Amino acid sequence: MTIQSKSAARPDSVTTGPIAGSRKIYTTPEGHPDIGVPFREIALDPSAREEPYRAYDTSGPYTDPAATIDLAAGLVPIRRDWIARRGFAPVAPREVRPEDNGNIGTDHLLTPCPAEHQVLAGRPGQPVTQYEFARAGIITEEMIYVAHRENLGRRKLQPGAEARRADGEDFGAEIPAFITPEFVRSEIARGRAIIPANINHPELEPVIIGRNFLVKINANIGNSAVTSGAAEEVEKLVWAIRWGGDTVMDLSTGRNIHNIRGWIMRNSPVPIGTVPIYQALEKVDGEPDKLTWEVFRDTLIEQAEQGVDYFTIHAGVRLAYVPLTATRTTGIVSRGGSIMARWCLAHHKESFLYERFDEICDIMRKYDVSFSLGDGLRPGSIADANDRAQFAELETLGELTKIAWDKGCQVMIEGPGHVPMHKIKVNMEKQLAECGEAPFYTLGPLTTDIAPGYDHITSAIGAAMIGWFGTAMLCYVTPKEHLGLPDRDDVKTGVITYRLAAHAADLAKGHPSARLRDDAVSRARFEFRWQDQFNLSLDPDTARKFHDETLPKDAHKVAHFCSMCGPKFCSMKITQDLREDAARMAGMEAKSAEFAEKGKALYLPETAAE
Amino acid sequence: MTIQSKSAARPDSVTTGPIAGSRKIYTTPEGHPDIGVPFREIALDPSAREEPYRAYDTSGPYTDPAATIDLAAGLVPIRRDWIARRGFAPVAPREVRPEDNGNIGTDHLLTPCPAEHQVLAGRPGQPVTQYEFARAGIITEEMIYVAHRENLGRRKLQPGAEARRADGEDFGAEIPAFITPEFVRSEIARGRAIIPANINHPELEPVIIGRNFLVKINANIGNSAVTSGAAEEVEKLVWAIRWGGDTVMDLSTGRNIHNIRGWIMRNSPVPIGTVPIYQALEKVDGEPDKLTWEVFRDTLIEQAEQGVDYFTIHAGVRLAYVPLTATRTTGIVSRGGSIMARWCLAHHKESFLYERFDEICDIMRKYDVSFSLGDGLRPGSIADANDRAQFAELETLGELTKIAWDKGCQVMIEGPGHVPMHKIKVNMEKQLAECGEAPFYTLGPLTTDIAPGYDHITSAIGAAMIGWFGTAMLCYVTPKEHLGLPDRDDVKTGVITYRLAAHAADLAKGHPSARLRDDAVSRARFEFRWQDQFNLSLDPDTARKFHDETLPKDAHKVAHFCSMCGPKFCSMKITQDLREDAARMAGMEAKSAEFAEKGKALYLPETAAE
Repeated sequence: MTIQSKSAARPDSVTTGPIAGSRKIYTTPEGHPDIGVPFREIALDPSAREEPYRAYDTSGPYTDPAATIDLAAGLVPIRRDWIARRGFAPVAPREVRPEDNGNIGTDHLLTPCPAEHQVLAGRPGQPVTQYEFARAGIITEEMIYVAHRENLGRRKLQPGAEARRADGEDFGAEIPAFITPEFVRSEIARGRAIIPANINHPELEPVIIGRNFLVKINANIGNSAVTSGAAEEVEKLVWAIRWGGDTVMDLSTGRNIHNIRGWIMRNSPVPIGTVPIYQALEKVDGEPDKLTWEVFRDTLIEQAEQGVDYFTIHAGVRLAYVPLTATRTTGIVSRGGSIMARWCLAHHKESFLYERFDEICDIMRKYDVSFSLGDGLRPGSIADANDRAQFAELETLGELTKIAWDKGCQVMIEGPGHVPMHKIKVNMEKQLAECGEAPFYTLGPLTTDIAPGYDHITSAIGAAMIGWFGTAMLCYVTPKEHLGLPDRDDVKTGVITYRLAAHAADLAKGHPSARLRDDAVSRARFEFRWQDQFNLSLDPDTARKFHDETLPKDAHKVAHFCSMCGPKFCSMKITQDLREDAARMAGMEAKSAEFAEKGKALYLPETAAE
Repeated sequence: MTIQSKSAARPDSVTTGPIAGSRKIYTTPEGHPDIGVPFREIALDPSAREEPYRAYDTSGPYTDPAATIDLAAGLVPIRRDWIARRGFAPVAPREVRPEDNGNIGTDHLLTPCPAEHQVLAGRPGQPVTQYEFARAGIITEEMIYVAHRENLGRRKLQPGAEARRADGEDFGAEIPAFITPEFVRSEIARGRAIIPANINHPELEPVIIGRNFLVKINANIGNSAVTSGAAEEVEKLVWAIRWGGDTVMDLSTGRNIHNIRGWIMRNSPVPIGTVPIYQALEKVDGEPDKLTWEVFRDTLIEQAEQGVDYFTIHAGVRLAYVPLTATRTTGIVSRGGSIMARWCLAHHKESFLYERFDEICDIMRKYDVSFSLGDGLRPGSIADANDRAQFAELETLGELTKIAWDKGCQVMIEGPGHVPMHKIKVNMEKQLAECGEAPFYTLGPLTTDIAPGYDHITSAIGAAMIGWFGTAMLCYVTPKEHLGLPDRDDVKTGVITYRLAAHAADLAKGHPSARLRDDAVSRARFEFRWQDQFNLSLDPDTARKFHDETLPKDAHKVAHFCSMCGPKFCSMKITQDLREDAARMAGMEAKSAEFAEKGKALYLPETAAE
């Protein structure tokens, strides 16, 4: 998928600067002064008498005014020392070939990113992956980092965390009230969570994906048809993570993709995922029949050396499953799935991804590239949801999960697609059962097919629900889905929509820190702290703009009512007046539902918010 | 709530003309040539070999090129003869008073709508309401009309309807595969459905609201601060129903509201709801303490005579419940609820709405104004969801429902509000239990508080879910919720968002006609019938625009691929090629998952869609 630029002007740098009303901070897990975990701190109006609100922050150094952003130099490799201590051998990198960049002429070849990049690889017998360390009982720096991040930088159990957790419905998840590094380790060791973190991606700010952690979201980006420069491509990444993308998939195809990927990797603080079969197909002139194991294998190594953190591998599209799609309304809608189906039929052979799965594992383990086992047979319409083709593939993905674990790899599983609400839950249950609780990573699902132009919403409904049921990461859908290429506004809309869906899921699961933000917004709303309400929201700029469209004057931004109802009809104003009257009249507490005497205090005086 | 006009230019008429790609048709229930029910017929490309798709149509005569729209004359009173046959007495209408229009000076007084309007009222002992007719075993024309409408004009059970119904999960609803007028009658008689249809609103195209019917949506409109004319106000209605509003609530306050309402009623083909306490408050200078039963009663009669179809009555906000809101994070957020709470406390008395409920019923029965029992204590934040105040009120609404039924009235129940996903279902269950299965009508609910600017989406998640669980009507939320006044674009976005949420609910419930539209869109998508995909969608204009932004040329609108992946990566194209190859090679059917011989047909030749 390509992001279309609305303006003819091409950026020569990327978007930087803080998100409105917040500042970047770094905090340190107890006993680990060398680890700095980023958050956004949102200061509140003094009248709130509340500490600044601390928000999870995916945006990387780009929102830190103190950071120097130089795309050619890349981001600071914060993981370098951690990785160095693990003793990996630098290897001679695979040589770049013309076909890696789509055989583009030298005139149009994008300059490779000059940032320093030494390629590392694990040796047989040596632990490389987070899974291997976890199984060996070793807590890595990445595990410490994500534990602190999931706790929003808090060093101990917060008051009320247990109660908030107990208030949720988690469908058998086991979310602790406080996340310890040891808990992270044990979840990874059980295969229930992954930290996609290629040892060749030292710039990464680690993130954990698993059912017992905050629900994550992925945003897709892709190259432009005509690339004017590296900044334009990196900007797509920067823009998607600014608004909350936890990971980004680079779905670029065509020319310059190797070099574009290099720029992206060296400048990405989030895990980058790819679908290597796309590039492999380019290398054989776009003809699926000509794909070979050798070309695919070479592409895996090429991308792993660049530092890609997870690969979508459609190894579950087996020859025997293709006929199961024959009577579908919308056939095969996954690009990778249709490519592999075509290959299987053309050669009348089992998929080489399936047959060579062991070898794929060996390559991916060597760099700690996580598997995202692709759902090449996912349904592309309500009519095809939960059919035999879909579930046959899921069963195979379960079988492959166990092989990948045995090989020491981290694994997550991709899921649908288009599923009506009443058929969502069984997807989650079957995935947990078949795949040994490996993290589920779904695209939506879209809950109806009738609203092209609004599929960020049809899918946010399904995404929120399946996130609640246990999906660990939600792949976003933009308003342009099924229709065209998303522009910047579409990407932002998609990311914010998925952030709110993921948060709704966290709330429903009873994640102990989720409700803190809702409560902070609600207190701000009730107390007419308009600026606080805007700044605490997922998209302060839009909230502020919408407010200002009807009440543009500065005076109105402190008004104790708003344009919707005006002062006479403002329920919040009336309620506050009630509370003040009651406090004035009596100053005494009354919680009883029964009272008889006029003037008895009905409301507590307003107290400092918790 | 007021809709803000973006342009300075004021309309002198309203939006008319067909929705892109469709034409208005009227069909007739068997044996009732005098009843014509509107639908939108969407013709498909000849290559589809499909009948035109017939869509439910809320848009009224405004989308019928054959209709003459003259706001001063009002719409054709299609119900007049039906109502006339019931023998109601014309009554001398209540005289309009200056305070009905907010004491506006004659210079700024909006001219009353000159359309003919004879006020009718039922007499004691004579059946007036749809509930009374239903209880007496009488099938009204309105019941015949809505049965035909719910069947999308089909006169008999459609093939596959039973299977589609059985495929859903309806949580104890009893949706038949085919809706008969007798089924409608029995649902109304049991109080499980209502047809809001004031006998003074003969222009109405009847619509049924109940758990065993298609899920409906409501859009709110309100007057502008400065009204330039009647057309501007009627346009808000016309715009909201054009995109799918099943009912419209007129939440106008301030000046000219009586006369604005007159224009709206005479030109509305959908049920109009109001909150009479708003106008009553205006009549006492906006001071809740000065409200009296007499002023309220007078307002009910004023609005009932104009033809308002349902009234929100906050009779469940009892004096004893107000203290239950004292420790809430966001107090009372319903305007009507806060007004009544204020009144109760100021006078230290039980609510006159509760105490005079019998009398309110008598008035509403006389004109068949349906109750929408207001949830004045609904939660305004995740923190306050499902608290004692909310449920105490719901229990009282249950008690009032039974009184209203005894009095012969139609009743629905309003619901929240702000509720996290895991607390939604119990709202539905408790409402069904407390209120004897009277239809539930909810605002959202919003599933998180952290996304102002996107609350159409936070609430669409909750709306789709609660609609699935059994809510009969969903009140829309626009992107401006909590921030400002919706403009035209916001209203459209809100309506389309709620249409897709309601449809997702219908699908999940297994409504026998719901999936037909999804399947039609999906077939069009798979067969690259772009125009059909656009025209079948909820918002053809936006779908077409999004597509054309990236592929503007006409040639691309018939292309067998799209801009997202291009021809090489188009999974649908690859799948279709596969099917064609297979058909060419063998021409034989193969459904087995096992096959050995190269060239065996893997796909059925493309068949005419069902």
